[in-house]
Amino acid sequence: MDFSLSEDQQLIANGFTELMESRDWESYFHECDEKSEYPQEWVAAICELGFDRILLPEEYDGLGLDWVTLTAAYEALGRAGGPTYVLYQLPGYNSVIREGTDEQRDKILAHVGTGDQILNYSMTEPSAGSSWDDMRTTYTRRDGKVYLNGHKTFQTSAMKVPYLVVMARNADDMSVYSEWFVDTSLPGIAKEPLHKLGLRMDSCAEVYFDDVELQEKDLWGTEGNAFKRGVKDFDDERFLVALTNYGTAYCAFEDAARYANQRVQGGQAIARHQLIQLKFADMKVALTNMRNMLYEIAWKMDHGTTGRGDCSMAKYYCSHAAHLVVDNALQVLAGVGITGEHRVQRFYRDLRVDRVSGGTDEMMILAAGRGALRDYR
Amino acid sequence: MDFSLSEDQQLIANGFTELMESRDWESYFHECDEKSEYPQEWVAAICELGFDRILLPEEYDGLGLDWVTLTAAYEALGRAGGPTYVLYQLPGYNSVIREGTDEQRDKILAHVGTGDQILNYSMTEPSAGSSWDDMRTTYTRRDGKVYLNGHKTFQTSAMKVPYLVVMARNADDMSVYSEWFVDTSLPGIAKEPLHKLGLRMDSCAEVYFDDVELQEKDLWGTEGNAFKRGVKDFDDERFLVALTNYGTAYCAFEDAARYANQRVQGGQAIARHQLIQLKFADMKVALTNMRNMLYEIAWKMDHGTTGRGDCSMAKYYCSHAAHLVVDNALQVLAGVGITGEHRVQRFYRDLRVDRVSGGTDEMMILAAGRGALRDYR
Amino acid sequence: MDFSLSEDQQLIANGFTELMESRDWESYFHECDEKSEYPQEWVAAICELGFDRILLPEEYDGLGLDWVTLTAAYEALGRAGGPTYVLYQLPGYNSVIREGTDEQRDKILAHVGTGDQILNYSMTEPSAGSSWDDMRTTYTRRDGKVYLNGHKTFQTSAMKVPYLVVMARNADDMSVYSEWFVDTSLPGIAKEPLHKLGLRMDSCAEVYFDDVELQEKDLWGTEGNAFKRGVKDFDDERFLVALTNYGTAYCAFEDAARYANQRVQGGQAIARHQLIQLKFADMKVALTNMRNMLYEIAWKMDHGTTGRGDCSMAKYYCSHAAHLVVDNALQVLAGVGITGEHRVQRFYRDLRVDRVSGGTDEMMILAAGRGALRDYR
Amino acid sequence: MDFSLSEDQQLIANGFTELMESRDWESYFHECDEKSEYPQEWVAAICELGFDRILLPEEYDGLGLDWVTLTAAYEALGRAGGPTYVLYQLPGYNSVIREGTDEQRDKILAHVGTGDQILNYSMTEPSAGSSWDDMRTTYTRRDGKVYLNGHKTFQTSAMKVPYLVVMARNADDMSVYSEWFVDTSLPGIAKEPLHKLGLRMDSCAEVYFDDVELQEKDLWGTEGNAFKRGVKDFDDERFLVALTNYGTAYCAFEDAARYANQRVQGGQAIARHQLIQLKFADMKVALTNMRNMLYEIAWKMDHGTTGRGDCSMAKYYCSHAAHLVVDNALQVLAGVGITGEHRVQRFYRDLRVDRVSGGTDEMMILAAGRGALRDYR
Repeated sequence: MDFSLSEDQQLIANGFTELMESRDWESYFHECDEKSEYPQEWVAAICELGFDRILLPEEYDGLGLDWVTLTAAYEALGRAGGPTYVLYQLPGYNSVIREGTDEQRDKILAHVGTGDQILNYSMTEPSAGSSWDDMRTTYTRRDGKVYLNGHKTFQTSAMKVPYLVVMARNADDMSVYSEWFVDTSLPGIAKEPLHKLGLRMDSCAEVYFDDVELQEKDLWGTEGNAFKRGVKDFDDERFLVALTNYGTAYCAFEDAARYANQRVQGGQAIARHQLIQLKFADMKVALTNMRNMLYEIAWKMDHGTTGRGDCSMAKYYCSHAAHLVVDNALQVLAGVGITGEHRVQRFYRDLRVDRVSGGTDEMMILAAGRGALRDYR
Repeated sequence: MDFSLSEDQQLIANGFTELMESRDWESYFHECDEKSEYPQEWVAAICELGFDRILLPEEYDGLGLDWVTLTAAYEALGRAGGPTYVLYQLPGYNSVIREGTDEQRDKILAHVGTGDQILNYSMTEPSAGSSWDDMRTTYTRRDGKVYLNGHKTFQTSAMKVPYLVVMARNADDMSVYSEWFVDTSLPGIAKEPLHKLGLRMDSCAEVYFDDVELQEKDLWGTEGNAFKRGVKDFDDERFLVALTNYGTAYCAFEDAARYANQRVQGGQAIARHQLIQLKFADMKVALTNMRNMLYEIAWKMDHGTTGRGDCSMAKYYCSHAAHLVVDNALQVLAGVGITGEHRVQRFYRDLRVDRVSGGTDEMMILAAGRGALRDYR
Repeated sequence: MDFSLSEDQQLIANGFTELMESRDWESYFHECDEKSEYPQEWVAAICELGFDRILLPEEYDGLGLDWVTLTAAYEALGRAGGPTYVLYQLPGYNSVIREGTDEQRDKILAHVGTGDQILNYSMTEPSAGSSWDDMRTTYTRRDGKVYLNGHKTFQTSAMKVPYLVVMARNADDMSVYSEWFVDTSLPGIAKEPLHKLGLRMDSCAEVYFDDVELQEKDLWGTEGNAFKRGVKDFDDERFLVALTNYGTAYCAFEDAARYANQRVQGGQAIARHQLIQLKFADMKVALTNMRNMLYEIAWKMDHGTTGRGDCSMAKYYCSHAAHLVVDNALQVLAGVGITGEHRVQRFYRDLRVDRVSGGTDEMMILAAGRGALRDYR
Repeated sequence: MDFSLSEDQQLIANGFTELMESRDWESYFHECDEKSEYPQEWVAAICELGFDRILLPEEYDGLGLDWVTLTAAYEALGRAGGPTYVLYQLPGYNSVIREGTDEQRDKILAHVGTGDQILNYSMTEPSAGSSWDDMRTTYTRRDGKVYLNGHKTFQTSAMKVPYLVVMARNADDMSVYSEWFVDTSLPGIAKEPLHKLGLRMDSCAEVYFDDVELQEKDLWGTEGNAFKRGVKDFDDERFLVALTNYGTAYCAFEDAARYANQRVQGGQAIARHQLIQLKFADMKVALTNMRNMLYEIAWKMDHGTTGRGDCSMAKYYCSHAAHLVVDNALQVLAGVGITGEHRVQRFYRDLRVDRVSGGTDEMMILAAGRGALRDYR
C-alpha cells in the first residue's frame, strides 16, 4: 500500500498550487460568478500549464499521464478556491478520440491548451429526466441530409460551446438512439439561458432544434450506439463531479480553520470551544474519506479495476460530505461567511446544484446500492 | 387538549390566505429579492388587513389578540410563499410601549398600518459576536449632550429604518450598558450595505457612529438596563425566526408535493417511487413537529408559562427541520428547482442565513441544553 | 388551542405515577427481563388502578374515557421505567367488542382487571413478512368442522396467551382471508420460543398449526373480512408502539439529566460541557416532538379526524427519536450506563426491536409518505 | 499510490480467512457470548497461525511485520465474524518491550502463541473518568516496600489477566503518576465483575487494591512517566478499537447482502426495493471509508507519519459508521435479525460499548477536532 503521490505527481500538483497563489484569483472568480461568466482567463492559465493535456495521449501532443495525477491537479486547484466544475470537458478528449471521426477530433483538439469551452453532450429533455424512453428528439433522413428536431433542457455550457453531441432517436425506428456532432451556430438552433442556484460560471440553457440540417458525416460514433457510449462516459463524469466537490470542501475547511484559530471571543479563540471542535472533527472525517475514496477510484481507473457503482457512490457521498464541510465552515465563519462576499457562500450554492445535475442523488443511490449488492448474488 | 384554532383565529388566518391568493405575489417577491428591496407593497397590504395590530393592545388601536393568532397569521403567509422574515419588528410594539417614552412610542406607532420599516435594535459588533464583554460602542456625556461612538455590524434593516435602538457602554463606567433611541438621519452616522447569501428583501449593513449627538431624552428604557431588556426580547425574536422558517418549509413542501404527483417519468408519477415517498415521510414529520412546537410555545406565551430555553430550542430545531424540508423539496423538484427562478431556490438561501443571524445555532444549542438540564438539578 | 390535560386526565395520570413510586419496580423489571418473564405483578397492579378499563365502554364495566387519557397513562408509566410494551392488548377491547361473538367477547373480558396476557392476532408467516399474497396458512371445512394448518412466526406473546386470532386463507378459495378465534391449548398446536434482542418481558415464538380442529362458531368477525379488520386495528397498534417508545425515552432522558448535573469531572458537573449540552438540546427536541405528535394523534382519534399515515408517521418518527434520546442518555451515563445493570441498557435493546416488529420502518415510511402526498393530487 | 496489499500481506490475510472457514466458529462465539467467556480456543488458534507475532520483532521470535499486515489480519478475522475486540493486547508487545524490565517482559512474552489473556493497563477510576486530576489510587513507600491502595473501575479483562499495569499517584507527592506491574493474585486485591451491554467475551470489573504489597522492581517504566507512556499507547488502542468496529460492520454487511438477494417478498428479492438499495449504498460508503481510513493510518504508522488526532478520528468515525452498517443490516434482516440468535444482534450490542470504552466519543471528538485545527494556527 502507498497513500502518497509519486514525486512527479506531486510536482505537477505543486505547479497548479503555485499558479493559484500567483495572483488574487478569488476576486476574478467572484466577478465571473456575479456576471455568470466563464472564467476563460483562469482556464487558459491552467491549460497553459498543461491541465487539459494530463490524460491526453502523447501522440496527440498530450502528457499521457494517469487519473491519479489528474486527481491531484483537481485537488490543488479546488483547495485554492478554483471553480473546477467548469473543467469537466477537458479530461474527456479520450472519449473524443475513441468516438469521433478524424475531422471531428481535429476540430475539437484544435482547442487544446486554449481554455475554451468546446463541447458537451446533450441528452436531458423536459419530459425525460433520467428516463430515456421518453426522449422526444429525433433525426430524420431526407434527400441525403439528416434533420434534427427536438428540445433539450438543463444543457450545461450551452451558451458557449461551439459543438454539441446531441442524442436523438431515429424517427423511422424509435428504438435506435444515435448521437450527432452539431455545430451550434447552425440555422434552426435556438437557446434560452437558465438561471441557476449555483455553478454560475458555466452556462445552462434550453436548446431547441428546429429542422437543423446535418450531414451523414456528422454522425458521432456508431449509429445506434448512443447509450453504450453514454454509459461508458457517465462514470467519468460522476467521478469528476465528486472531485470538484471535494476540492471545494477542502477550500472551505481551510478558510474556516484559519478563522477559528484567529477569531477571539470572550478572550479566547473560538477554536477552543467544544462545539467548534466538533465541527472540525466532522469536517476532517469528511475530507479524509473523500480524499481516500477519490484517489482509490482514480487508482482503480488507472488499473482498469473500477467497480460498477464506484463512481456513483463517489458522487453521492462527496456531494453530501462536501455539503457537510461547507455548511460547517459557514457556521464557523458565521456573520463573516453569511454576509459580504465570502467565497464560502458561493460554494454553498454551487454544491447544491451538483446533487441534481450530472445525475441526481437518487440515481447515484440506486446505482451504488445495486453495485454493492451485485457481488452477493 | 385541543389542537385546533378557534373560529376567530381561523377567520383571521383565512383572511391572510385570501390576500395571498388575490394576486401573483411571487413575481413581486422574486423581483424584490433580485433587487434586494424591501417588499413594501406586500407588507402594506397585510398591515391593512391588521397584521401589525394583532398583538397591539386595544388602547393603542390594536386588536389585542394572542400569540396563537399571530402564529396562525405567520403560518398562512409563509405557506403561501410570503417573505415573513421582513416582519420581525411588527409584533414588537409591546416592547416599545413598555420601554419607550411617550414621545418615542408615538413616533413609532405613527407607522402602524403602513408597512414601513421603522425600528431595529443594534447590538452586534465586529469584535463581539455573542460576547458582550467585547462591545466597544460607547456614549459620553459632554455639555448636557450625549455623544455616541462606535461600529455595529450585520445590522438588519439598517438601510431603511428611521430609528435604531443602539446599545452602548457608558464611557465613564464601562460596566453600564444602556440603549439609545437614535434617528438614523442624524449627522455622524454612516452605513455600508452588506450583501447576504439570503434574506435579501431586508437590508443588512455596517453602521458607524462618529460622535453622534443625542439628547438625554433619547435614552431608551432605563439606564444600565440594556441587557435585561435585550434578554427579555430575545426569546420573542427567536420564536419569530423559527416561525418564518416553518412557513417557508410548508410552502416548499406543498410545491414539491404537487410536482411529485404530476411529474411523470417512465410512465408513472415520481410520487410512486420509494425514495420520493421517503422524502415526503421525512418532510411531513418535520412539518408536524415544527407546527406543534411553535403553537405550543405560542400557547405558553399566552399563558405566561414559556420555559427557559423553549424559544432557543424552537429556533434551533426549526432552522434545521426547515432546511431538511426545503432541501428535500429541491431534490424532488430537481432540475425545475435548481434552475429557472423557482422560489425554492430562494428559500434554500434564506434559511441558511437564519442559522447565524438572530443568534447562532451554537447559542441556541447551549441555551436549549441548559434549559433542559435546569429542571433536574 | 390547549396543550394541557384536563384536571381529570391529570388525576388519572398522577395515580399511575404514584403507583410507580410506591415501590422499587425497577429491580422487578430487571429480574423479569433477565428471565424473559411477563411482569404479571406489575400489570395486575396497574389494571387494579383501572388501566385496562380506560377505553372500555361503561356498559362493559369500563371507564369509557378517551385516547388522550390513555396517552397520559402510558406517558406516566413509561416515564417511570415501566415496560409498557407488554400492555398492547389492553386498549384493544373495543375491537373485541366490535368483532367477537358474545361468547368470544365474554371469554376475553373475563380477564379485565387481572393483568393476564389474553389475546393476540396472528398474521406474520416466514415466507410472508409484509406481503400477504404469500400467506400459506389455510382453513379447510370438512365434516362440519374447520381444520387449521400452517405456520406463523415472530408471534408476540405466543407462549402465554390463551387465545390467538389466526388469519388464514380458505383452502377452497385462496382469495378469501378469514380469522379464527383459537384456544392455544388445542391439540395440534406447537410453539417454539424465539429469543429476541429486546422486549424480553413479552414472549415471541414460532407457532405451528397441524390440523387444528375448530368449530364454525370460532370464526372471528365476518368471513373474508380479515384484511379490513386488520388494517383498521393496525393504526392503533402503531400508535401504541410509538407511545411506548416515547415513555422509554422520557425515562432515559431524566436518568441522564440527573446524572449529568451530579457527576463531577475536573471540578465541575459534566452538565456544563458544551458537548453534553448539545445532547440535552437534541434530547429535549426529540421529547417535545414526540409528546406533541402523540397527543395530537390521540386527540384526533378522540375526534375521528386521524389522517391516513398519521400513526405510521408516529411509529416511524418515535422509534428513531426515542433511539436518539436513549443513545444520547447512554453516552451521558457512559461507563455507568454501559456496565452494571442500568435500565438504559435494556431500553437500548428494547427500542431496536420496535423498528422491525409491529410493521417495519420501511412500511411506516411508505405509508407516511403516501399519506403526505395524498392531499396534493 | 497503491491501494492493494502486497502478495505476502494478502497471503497472511488469506491464512486467517481459511482458518475462519475451517469450522463453525459462530456457534462457539455465540456460546462464549452467552456465558460471558473468553474465546480461548479461537485466540489460541489464530495465535498458532502467528497473529500475536505479526508486530513482534524477530529477535523476540516474532514476525517483525508491519501495521498494514496487522490491519489485513484484523479485517479478515472480523469480516468472518470473529470477536476481534478480545485481541487488543496482542499487538501491544512492543510497548512491553520498550517499558518493561527484562523480568517483566519475559513473564509476558512467555504467553506468546498461547492465546491467553495476559495483561492490561489500569487507569479509570469511579471519580475520574477521563480526568486524571481526580485519580485517587496511590502508592506509598514504607519499609523498603511499596503499598498500593485504590479502586479502579470498568477494568477490561480484569477477571482473567494475571497482570495489571496499574497507574497510581505517589502518596508523598501527588503530582507524580507512575505505573506498577501487579500480579493480580497478590493478597489485598479484590474484583467484582461488571455485566456489560456487549463485548461480553471479555470481562470487565471493579478492582480494589487494599494495601497491596509490591517491590521496587515492580515499577513499570520510569517513575513519573505514567502519562507519557499512556498517551503514547492510547493512539494504538484507539486504532485497534476502530479496526474491530470495521470488521464487525463488514461481516454484518455481507450477511445482509446475501439475505437481501435471496429473500423474496411479493415475488421479487427485497434487494430490488429502492429503500433497500439506499441502505446498501450507505453501507458501502461507510465500509469504503472505514477501510481506507484504517489502512491509511496503518500505512502512516509504518512510516512514522501518523498525525495527532488521526487515531481518535478513526475511533470516532468507525464506531459511528460501523453502527450505521450494523443498524442497516439488522433492518434488512428484519425478523430474522431481531429474533433467534443471529450474530448481528450481538454486533449491535458490542458496537455500542465501544463508543464509551477505550475513550468516549466525546474525547475522540475533541482530540480529532483539535488535531484538525492545529495545522492552521
